[in-house]
Amino acid sequence: GDPERGAGLVASCVACHGPGGRSSMPRYPNLAGQHEAYLLSALEAYRDGDREDPEMAPQVMRFDDQELADIAAYFAEQDCD
Amino acid sequence: GDPERGAGLVASCVACHGPGGRSSMPRYPNLAGQHEAYLLSALEAYRDGDREDPEMAPQVMRFDDQELADIAAYFAEQDCD
Repeated sequence: GDPERGAGLVASCVACHGPGGRSSMPRYPNLAGQHEAYLLSALEAYRDGDREDPEMAPQVMRFDDQELADIAAYFAEQDCD
Repeated sequence: GDPERGAGLVASCVACHGPGGRSSMPRYPNLAGQHEAYLLSALEAYRDGDREDPEMAPQVMRFDDQELADIAAYFAEQDCD
């Protein structure tokens, strides 16, 4: 995905996952520096119902596949600390 | 959980997630520096079938609840880069 495009899509993500995906709330995972392929597979799992999470489901439904890839690319590029 | 006890339990985890949970294989997530509470909730989701993953299921079944908490504590304490 394209991290620049992703940067414009993450406002609702960072509300829970923190700026750059460095979360301050322990129940929300850090996303910064995570592998892009893993982040995308997790987003797809929420989209496809392979992972059931009432908070994530409505979030991922708002994005198309390219946008999910761009979001994954954005967080993968962030520094983890 | 107790990270010292966890250190003695993670041999099979690091086989995929890498030393200290810094994974070199993009489909396996980095665990280093992730929130302990989140790591434990993910392990419990695999244990309880809320997350279905053929690779993770047999792994988590080998540990009791305290051991899962110790494993989560261990990876949470690792430096993420």
